[in-house]
Amino acid sequence: MSTQSLDNMVARLNRLPGIGIKTAQRLAYHILTLAPEDVRGLADALTAARERVHYCPVCGNFTEDELCSVCADPRRDKKVICVVKDARDVSYMERMREYHGAYHVLGGTLSPMDGVGPEDIRIAELVSRVREGDVKEVILATDPDVEGEATAAYIAKQLKELGVKVTRIAHGIPIGGNLEYVDEMTLFKAMENRREL
Amino acid sequence: MSTQSLDNMVARLNRLPGIGIKTAQRLAYHILTLAPEDVRGLADALTAARERVHYCPVCGNFTEDELCSVCADPRRDKKVICVVKDARDVSYMERMREYHGAYHVLGGTLSPMDGVGPEDIRIAELVSRVREGDVKEVILATDPDVEGEATAAYIAKQLKELGVKVTRIAHGIPIGGNLEYVDEMTLFKAMENRREL
Repeated sequence: MSTQSLDNMVARLNRLPGIGIKTAQRLAYHILTLAPEDVRGLADALTAARERVHYCPVCGNFTEDELCSVCADPRRDKKVICVVKDARDVSYMERMREYHGAYHVLGGTLSPMDGVGPEDIRIAELVSRVREGDVKEVILATDPDVEGEATAAYIAKQLKELGVKVTRIAHGIPIGGNLEYVDEMTLFKAMENRREL
Repeated sequence: MSTQSLDNMVARLNRLPGIGIKTAQRLAYHILTLAPEDVRGLADALTAARERVHYCPVCGNFTEDELCSVCADPRRDKKVICVVKDARDVSYMERMREYHGAYHVLGGTLSPMDGVGPEDIRIAELVSRVREGDVKEVILATDPDVEGEATAAYIAKQLKELGVKVTRIAHGIPIGGNLEYVDEMTLFKAMENRREL
């Protein structure tokens, strides 16, 4: 049976992406059966993460510190920048453990249909990094779908004018797929076979 | 990239039923992009519901008040008790809008394989309600799966000794299914065609 606070919990959960009304109800009823300290632990984890985590001012990755763990690591090669759609893609790349350069998180991909243009994602910041820093290669690792390819092509055009080497990760990744569902070995091959644009 | 508070949020979400690591990550990264007040609203909804909602002392349903909304409603026929597995099943029954009796929430079903015996679910409370109250019919609406049927058979045996009419909802519900995925009309037919045990 519904109660006001239960209804509110279901409605809040239902707003999350991929959480339909049935799933929201299932989660809500489960949460009512948890120990109060576990519910508080979950709630605190959400608010603490949202309060503490912010964007790295250099690369746009998520961090709790001034710089993200990659930008703050002196062993990472800052002369190579891997460009990805969002911060989750950084975590997929890092899982591979074979990339030792830096990142640039775009915060989206070009999508004229959705009204997302070059000024809506962090392309100008990337151009500045390349112009002002000692960058020898920019690896474009946006997803190999329509928006990802268009974004890579657009960025490649901007950067070539600056004379930097621009590469695209190889199509070892299934066309139409995205980085999330690729195994580490495929991702490693895709990085290894990157080609200059 | 992972941070401590982000990792903690992912781990907490991953503990919820049906939320695998990929879904937990997707939700966590989404939550980081929400307005802080929306994250606090979600977190508060979880803790408030867990703090305010408790079991109805009569039927075992969830409620924020002393009695649940069904038990507190004088228009509901307390002489008919519909027995369900859990509080979510009450919400599915209520959605039908054709049942005007009371409920009894078992809080589970008999499952020897999982070590759930008659003393682990609210069967004694049901027997007490029938023995002490003026009950003319008990409708067994546990799911038509192995555990649900076994639970219904066990309860029927206990209650028949008290001379009360015991019925089982009809098998309009697909065998092996559960109340969650049944449409209102099928559920209505199942209630209408209930048979005495």
